[in-house]
Amino acid sequence: MSAPNSLDESVRRTLPAHIEALRDIGTLFYHWAWSLGTSSNYSVVLSHEPFRLLLTASGKDKRRLGPGDFVVVDGDGQALEATAQKPSAETMLHVALGKQANVRCVLHTHSIWATVLSDLHAAGGGFAIEGYEMLKGLSGVTTHDHRQWVEVFENTQDIAGLAKRVQQRLSDAANPLRHGFLIRGHGLYTWGRDLDEARRHVEIFEFLFEVVGRRTALERSAVAAS
Amino acid sequence: MSAPNSLDESVRRTLPAHIEALRDIGTLFYHWAWSLGTSSNYSVVLSHEPFRLLLTASGKDKRRLGPGDFVVVDGDGQALEATAQKPSAETMLHVALGKQANVRCVLHTHSIWATVLSDLHAAGGGFAIEGYEMLKGLSGVTTHDHRQWVEVFENTQDIAGLAKRVQQRLSDAANPLRHGFLIRGHGLYTWGRDLDEARRHVEIFEFLFEVVGRRTALERSAVAAS
Amino acid sequence: MSAPNSLDESVRRTLPAHIEALRDIGTLFYHWAWSLGTSSNYSVVLSHEPFRLLLTASGKDKRRLGPGDFVVVDGDGQALEATAQKPSAETMLHVALGKQANVRCVLHTHSIWATVLSDLHAAGGGFAIEGYEMLKGLSGVTTHDHRQWVEVFENTQDIAGLAKRVQQRLSDAANPLRHGFLIRGHGLYTWGRDLDEARRHVEIFEFLFEVVGRRTALERSAVAAS
Amino acid sequence: MSAPNSLDESVRRTLPAHIEALRDIGTLFYHWAWSLGTSSNYSVVLSHEPFRLLLTASGKDKRRLGPGDFVVVDGDGQALEATAQKPSAETMLHVALGKQANVRCVLHTHSIWATVLSDLHAAGGGFAIEGYEMLKGLSGVTTHDHRQWVEVFENTQDIAGLAKRVQQRLSDAANPLRHGFLIRGHGLYTWGRDLDEARRHVEIFEFLFEVVGRRTALERSAVAAS
Repeated sequence: MSAPNSLDESVRRTLPAHIEALRDIGTLFYHWAWSLGTSSNYSVVLSHEPFRLLLTASGKDKRRLGPGDFVVVDGDGQALEATAQKPSAETMLHVALGKQANVRCVLHTHSIWATVLSDLHAAGGGFAIEGYEMLKGLSGVTTHDHRQWVEVFENTQDIAGLAKRVQQRLSDAANPLRHGFLIRGHGLYTWGRDLDEARRHVEIFEFLFEVVGRRTALERSAVAAS
Repeated sequence: MSAPNSLDESVRRTLPAHIEALRDIGTLFYHWAWSLGTSSNYSVVLSHEPFRLLLTASGKDKRRLGPGDFVVVDGDGQALEATAQKPSAETMLHVALGKQANVRCVLHTHSIWATVLSDLHAAGGGFAIEGYEMLKGLSGVTTHDHRQWVEVFENTQDIAGLAKRVQQRLSDAANPLRHGFLIRGHGLYTWGRDLDEARRHVEIFEFLFEVVGRRTALERSAVAAS
Repeated sequence: MSAPNSLDESVRRTLPAHIEALRDIGTLFYHWAWSLGTSSNYSVVLSHEPFRLLLTASGKDKRRLGPGDFVVVDGDGQALEATAQKPSAETMLHVALGKQANVRCVLHTHSIWATVLSDLHAAGGGFAIEGYEMLKGLSGVTTHDHRQWVEVFENTQDIAGLAKRVQQRLSDAANPLRHGFLIRGHGLYTWGRDLDEARRHVEIFEFLFEVVGRRTALERSAVAAS
Repeated sequence: MSAPNSLDESVRRTLPAHIEALRDIGTLFYHWAWSLGTSSNYSVVLSHEPFRLLLTASGKDKRRLGPGDFVVVDGDGQALEATAQKPSAETMLHVALGKQANVRCVLHTHSIWATVLSDLHAAGGGFAIEGYEMLKGLSGVTTHDHRQWVEVFENTQDIAGLAKRVQQRLSDAANPLRHGFLIRGHGLYTWGRDLDEARRHVEIFEFLFEVVGRRTALERSAVAAS
C-alpha cells in the first residue's frame, strides 16, 4: 500500500507529531466556532523539495479529527498513496500557498464574522484594517501603525482557477497579497512559517474581524442617530 | 417489565451506543447554548420496519443526560415498554421526520438566533439563505450557489396537527421541505441519514442563522445611516 | 464553636451534597459569564421550620468555590455558627425568597444581557416576554402563549428595604411577582423547588433576555431604516 | 548563569507557585478571548524593595504558557539573569504600575470590546461607567452609585514615554488614575494587591465594557428609530 519512494523516511517519521498538532487545532478551532459543520481544512508542508503536504481529508468533523483523517499530496495535489480518504476540494489552494518560501503551514477557517465581512466588502474587493496593536502579531509587522489590506475573492467551485488568481496576487511585485485573504461567504486563508505562526495569524484575523464588525455596527448606528 | 416482542434483540443491542452518542450530543449542544433549560430533544431511528425510535424523554437537562433519560416509541409515538419516563410532547414530530426514507436521526435545537430569526420572518413564512459555502454541507447540495428556503411554522401546542402539516410539506412534490425548518419562537428541526449528518446540519443551520442575523443588523443600520 | 442546637443533625448531613452542587453551579455559571468578578450568590433552603439557609459567603470567586465558601443563616439572616466567612450583603433577599412555600433554592446571577435590559426598561418598571416556547420551562407555565412580566427594581445598597418591597410583591394577591425579577444594573433573582428547577429558570431567563435584546436591536434598526 | 545576589532565596522559592498561577490565568483569559494571538502580558511583584517583577516573556502563546515563558526584571525593567527569553516590550508599563504601594499584580488583556470602546472614546480621552453593581467589585468602591472614569491613552510604540505619562496620572493628586485604563486599539491594564484582586478587576472591566458596548448600540438605534 505504501510507495516507499513517495515520502522520505525521515519525513515520514515527522507525520505523527504533525497529525497530533493538527488534531489539537481542529478541536480548538471547533470550540471557537471557526470550523463548524466539517468546514475548514488545515495543512502542514512536510518538505518543499520535493513538495509534500499533509492535509485534512475532505468532509471531516474538526471537533475530533481521527489519526486517519489526513492525506499527503504532492505539488499537483495528488495523493501520494492509495487511501480511502479524499483530499479536500480546496487542495490546490493549500498547495499554492504552501509553495511560498518560508511557509510551512496553511490554515483555512470559516467563522461567522469572516463570512459577514466578506459579504459586506465584496463589492470593494476587500477592506483595510488599520491602527490596531493586534496587527503587530502578523509576521513582519512591527507597529500598530500599519494598514493591512484584507482582499476578498469571489467564491467559486473552480478552485484550480481561484488558486491561480491567488498565485498571481502572491507574486504581484507591486502589491503582493500578504498574511491572508477572504473568500466571499467562505472564510479565511492564512499561513505561517510553522503551525504556531499560522494559528497566531488565524487568531489575529478573527479577533480583528470581530472588532471591525462590531465597530462598523456602532458607527453606522451613530450616523443614523445623528 | 420488558415486552420481549417489542424490540428485536439485534436492535436492542445497539441501544447503549446510540444512547452514549446522544448523551454526548446533549453536552455539546448545551455548551453551544442550543439546548438550555431542558429545551431540545434528539432521536435516533432504530429500525424503519417496524418503526422504532429512541428519543430523549420529556424535560431532561441536556447538559448531563443520564442513561435512563430516553424512551423507545413506535410509529404511533407510544412507548414500547412501561417506563417512568414520559416521551417528549414533540414525539410525533420526531416520528413524522424519522419515517422519511434514509433518515436515521432527528435533532431539535433551540438557539437564540433561530428564535430571533423565526420571529423576524414569521410573517413571510420563512426566509432564504443563499450563496454561502457552508450550504454545501447540507446533504445533496454541491455548490454555494444554492438557495435554501428556511420555512417558519407558527408555534402551537397541538403537535399532532403541526406534525401533519410538516408531513404534507415533506411530501409536497412540487416544492418539498428539505433539510430542516423552524418553528416560531421554538427553534430548529433538522435530520440526517445518521447522527453525524444530522449534527452537521444543526451546525450549518446555526452558523448560517447567526450570519444572517448579524448581516441583517449591519445592512439595516447601513440603510438607516444613508 | 458549633452550637449543637442550631442545625439538626439530619439536616447537617445533607450539607456536603448541597455544597458540592452549588460549587458545580458556580463553575457552570462562571463559564456562561453569568457570575464574573465574584458577583452572584446562590442558596439552598435546608429546612423551612426552623428556617435554615445555606448561602455562598460574601465576595467569593464563583469559578472555583471552596467547600468552606458558604455560611448557614437563620430566618433573620444571622450566621448560625461563628465563622470567618461573612454572609453576602444580599442575604435578606435570599431569606425572603427562600421562605416562600415550595421554594428550596434561590439563584442570583449577573449577566450582561440582564444588566443591559434592566437599564433599558427601568423607566417602565419592567418588560414583558411573550410567545416563546422557552417560557414553558418556567414552573407552572404550560403553553408558549404566556405573558411573563419581568419586573425591574431600582438598585440600592439598602438590601433590607429592597427585600421588604420584594416580599410585598410576592404576596400581592392581585398580581404577585412570579419566577424571578431583575434589579437594575445588578442582575437576576430566580428560584425553584430545588436546585435543578432554579437553574432551569436561570437558563430560561438568560436565554430569553438575549433573545429580547437581539430582537430589540434588529427591530429598532428596521424602524430606523424604513 | 544565575547571579546569586539578584534574587533572595526566600523570594526565589515563591516563583513556582506564582508561575503556576499565571499559567492558569493565561489559559483562562485565552478561553475568554482576552489574550488571543500572543497578545496580553501578566506580572507579579515578587518584592518591592528591591523591586523584583515576574513577567510573561515577549510573544508567548497564552493558551499554554510553559514554565519557562517568564522573566524576572528589576526596577529598570532589566532581566535579572541571562535568559533566552525577552521581556515584553511593555515591561516598563508593568514596572510603573507594579511600583505602586499595595500593588502585587498587573494584568494586561486585549479584548474585543475593550478595543472597540477605546476607538469609540479616544477623541474624548475616555468614558465613564456609572451606576452598575459590578463596580462594587473594584477595590475600595462600596456602592453601585459610583462613577468610574476609564481613561483612554493613545497607542504608541514608545512604551517608555507612555509609562511616564501613566506614572504622572497615577500620582495626579487632584484626580489620580484608579483601577485601570485603556490603550487605544490595544486593550486594558489593571492591577491589584494580589492576583485574585487583579483578575477580579479584569473580569469586572471586561463585563462592563461589553455592557456599555451593547447598551450604546441599543441606545443609538433607539435614537435613530425615533
